Amino acid sequence: MELHIVIHGRKDLANQVYEQLRESIESGRLAPGVQLPPSRLLAAQLGLSRKTISDTYSRLTYENYLVGKIGSGTFVNHLTAPTQRRQSAPVLASQKRIDAWQNLSLPLRHPTREGTLRHDFIGGATAKTQFPLDDWRRCTQHALRQMAQARGFYSQPEGVPELRKAIAGHIAFARGVNCVADDVVVCNGAQQALDLIARVLIEPGCTVAMEDPGYAPARLLFAAQGATVASVPVDDEGIRVECIPEDSHLIYVTPSHQMPLGMPMSLARRQALLDKARRIGAIIIEDDYDSEFRYEGRPTDSLQSMDGFGVVAYVGTFSKTLLPELRLGYAVLPATLREAVIQARQVTDWHTSTLPQWALAKFIGDGLLNRHIRRCHGIYAGRRDRILARLAGDLSPWMYAIPCTAGFHMAVMFKHPIDVALLVALMRKVDIGLYPLTGFYHHVPVRNGLIMGFGAIETLDIDPALDRLRDVLTQIA
Amino acid sequence: MELHIVIHGRKDLANQVYEQLRESIESGRLAPGVQLPPSRLLAAQLGLSRKTISDTYSRLTYENYLVGKIGSGTFVNHLTAPTQRRQSAPVLASQKRIDAWQNLSLPLRHPTREGTLRHDFIGGATAKTQFPLDDWRRCTQHALRQMAQARGFYSQPEGVPELRKAIAGHIAFARGVNCVADDVVVCNGAQQALDLIARVLIEPGCTVAMEDPGYAPARLLFAAQGATVASVPVDDEGIRVECIPEDSHLIYVTPSHQMPLGMPMSLARRQALLDKARRIGAIIIEDDYDSEFRYEGRPTDSLQSMDGFGVVAYVGTFSKTLLPELRLGYAVLPATLREAVIQARQVTDWHTSTLPQWALAKFIGDGLLNRHIRRCHGIYAGRRDRILARLAGDLSPWMYAIPCTAGFHMAVMFKHPIDVALLVALMRKVDIGLYPLTGFYHHVPVRNGLIMGFGAIETLDIDPALDRLRDVLTQIA
Repeated sequence: MELHIVIHGRKDLANQVYEQLRESIESGRLAPGVQLPPSRLLAAQLGLSRKTISDTYSRLTYENYLVGKIGSGTFVNHLTAPTQRRQSAPVLASQKRIDAWQNLSLPLRHPTREGTLRHDFIGGATAKTQFPLDDWRRCTQHALRQMAQARGFYSQPEGVPELRKAIAGHIAFARGVNCVADDVVVCNGAQQALDLIARVLIEPGCTVAMEDPGYAPARLLFAAQGATVASVPVDDEGIRVECIPEDSHLIYVTPSHQMPLGMPMSLARRQALLDKARRIGAIIIEDDYDSEFRYEGRPTDSLQSMDGFGVVAYVGTFSKTLLPELRLGYAVLPATLREAVIQARQVTDWHTSTLPQWALAKFIGDGLLNRHIRRCHGIYAGRRDRILARLAGDLSPWMYAIPCTAGFHMAVMFKHPIDVALLVALMRKVDIGLYPLTGFYHHVPVRNGLIMGFGAIETLDIDPALDRLRDVLTQIA
Repeated sequence: MELHIVIHGRKDLANQVYEQLRESIESGRLAPGVQLPPSRLLAAQLGLSRKTISDTYSRLTYENYLVGKIGSGTFVNHLTAPTQRRQSAPVLASQKRIDAWQNLSLPLRHPTREGTLRHDFIGGATAKTQFPLDDWRRCTQHALRQMAQARGFYSQPEGVPELRKAIAGHIAFARGVNCVADDVVVCNGAQQALDLIARVLIEPGCTVAMEDPGYAPARLLFAAQGATVASVPVDDEGIRVECIPEDSHLIYVTPSHQMPLGMPMSLARRQALLDKARRIGAIIIEDDYDSEFRYEGRPTDSLQSMDGFGVVAYVGTFSKTLLPELRLGYAVLPATLREAVIQARQVTDWHTSTLPQWALAKFIGDGLLNRHIRRCHGIYAGRRDRILARLAGDLSPWMYAIPCTAGFHMAVMFKHPIDVALLVALMRKVDIGLYPLTGFYHHVPVRNGLIMGFGAIETLDIDPALDRLRDVLTQIA
């Protein structure tokens, strides 16, 4: 790779090279430790004499910008501290819109490695210690061999056939979803599935209905696309269908495990929702994000499998069964939407990287996903039981869980008014992460409570962490 | 994983199981060859007697839906052909918008493995046989170890720090881009970078200016987001700055290697463009998709490095230097846009999968990217020379190349009117892929020509393929 230096005209050549190198080092563009090309090569590249370049290197070395190491070459000196780049702030035609994006409040950004707490009841994080890294490595090796056979072209926007088939088989078997491989579009997580479906449905100003409280990133996404998002209250059977506006183009729901409250949608409510969607011509997004983990009672039908009208788009993810950082999810689309979503996918970012697609196809095909889900199911069930036992026991004076049958988070409500922000802050001081429900509410009055995830916290850490919670509650409530 | 069967009430239990299994097999949801759970397990799951289940299995076996294999279990029979699923086509509130998406004409969809031609002058495909698979495998192994250290959370929307740093170092060194790691946002290819920048800038009805002819997927993307896309003609110095509408919020250009015509933007034009953007408050996207491969003359400054106003967003990709199917690209953003784009990224699909990010960081850090670019540079230079020699030689009666200095495609124009569609069809019959320029033009009258990529075609195949081209041209022109 050539070092980027631009020569203008034929005058003052040594100085042109000198100025550009010095400026690059001062600005930090050429970082400390970077090796410069041998003077002979740079001279040839720029059509200058070798002496011009080596004189310039010498001058910069004398000025401490560069350092020569005998036998290995010339490097940018570690002693130089880059100066700040100066740029005026332009006045932009789109400034208002940029500001709106910048001020978006995203409640669910996960902490980075450095920012994590020792005991964390965060939602959406999985049991990483359980991740079958050796199996995944083997599947990735397999995927690399698949990749070697392809021709250096773009792949299919809808996903590689092997993975679409594996996903269709998996969800037909385990969730009774009514689909074949052709109905499946592979996405970068469920969030992208929502984005694509919304793109092909939402025109500015049209109405999208969703649960309140509900999944905040979905709300932000629909609003960002120009929709008017209608907040529909939920009761203990799920979304209140009669409150869904008649002019809704899209209805977003989480029937298996309401996000964030947790209760499943009743059968009657599901039927009413399907009937209403058909009547008003709306598409329903069924976000089935973590229903692979089900603990009690008989399974319920997915909305998608009850749908005789072709109005349900079923969205799933491997962020909960495997890892969020893999960014692998999917949509199962009714025939009416399929081509449109695939086109939107290509325009947005062409397709999901092929390597993880092939790895996942192999992982599912070899039965490793099922095995992993079984193992995690047992672990999550244990953690859930532990939390429920404490809530029914020594924590019962202050809080109770909303009954739910699936997933790996639960909503825990306070029995009496309490300063939740204070509680969260005090717990954070003892390295325990708790998360209020506040950010999930939009128009509906906030009920004081917590969303308690049990993916990231180890089973043995639950009791000590809840001991501290009890101690703090005793003090403040 | 449990097989999904739903039991209602306490009546007619055997028949409920029978009907659901038969329907699942008939519809193809349970595909031929799928293994059913042992009757004992299914009975336990459903809370029914084992006899109920084994009787049901027997009945379905007798009816040829299932087949038992001694010692291994019960499987869906291969003899059953799934019936078509019937779904009524709903009348949707968003039908018009869905139709618009569905009827989008995407000129650049790459063929799948089955559909490829023997000799293909397709644009945007890389020399796959050169891909350093062993190096990439080693970097992927390294990335798997990195992944093992993380905690099962979501990663940063802007990309992992290691990769942002590696990209900043690479483009500062090789392209003189004025940036540090904090300015870089990792994206799923350049297309997603365009999508995100457009999202934070475009409101419905606002004007986006771009080159005509120009990169069609960018046009479709901006239009899909509600922009009015202004077609700005180009001449041999690049975009005609005086034709850019004064109310443009965004200007999309390809200065190093105009897409598709190939000529670089002149220095005077670059300066004029920057001045105009600053004056009207527009952001410029500089799509520098393949400038790593430069063959002639002195390098030119990137627009970004000439920008003192903070109006240039520089977009790059590893689709050309490595492989399009990796879906790795990036944006270098002015301070005004950075936070907004990162927020938009999170709402869209959170972040790029971490595994390929860590692999690429290692690949760049170990100097493997530079080595690979050097190797490919030599190969592409040879192919380019071969095509140019033929165009100056026996093909010169019919066609000529537009001068360009970078990349791995060139635009080839016809000297006389010719039926390009017929030419393409005849060449396809002899297994050679040629691609007309037509799809890149929008308002400006189409000039008859071809976009000739030399990434996918092997050097030794060029002469025989161009021999056939000459033969066909002799016949039809």
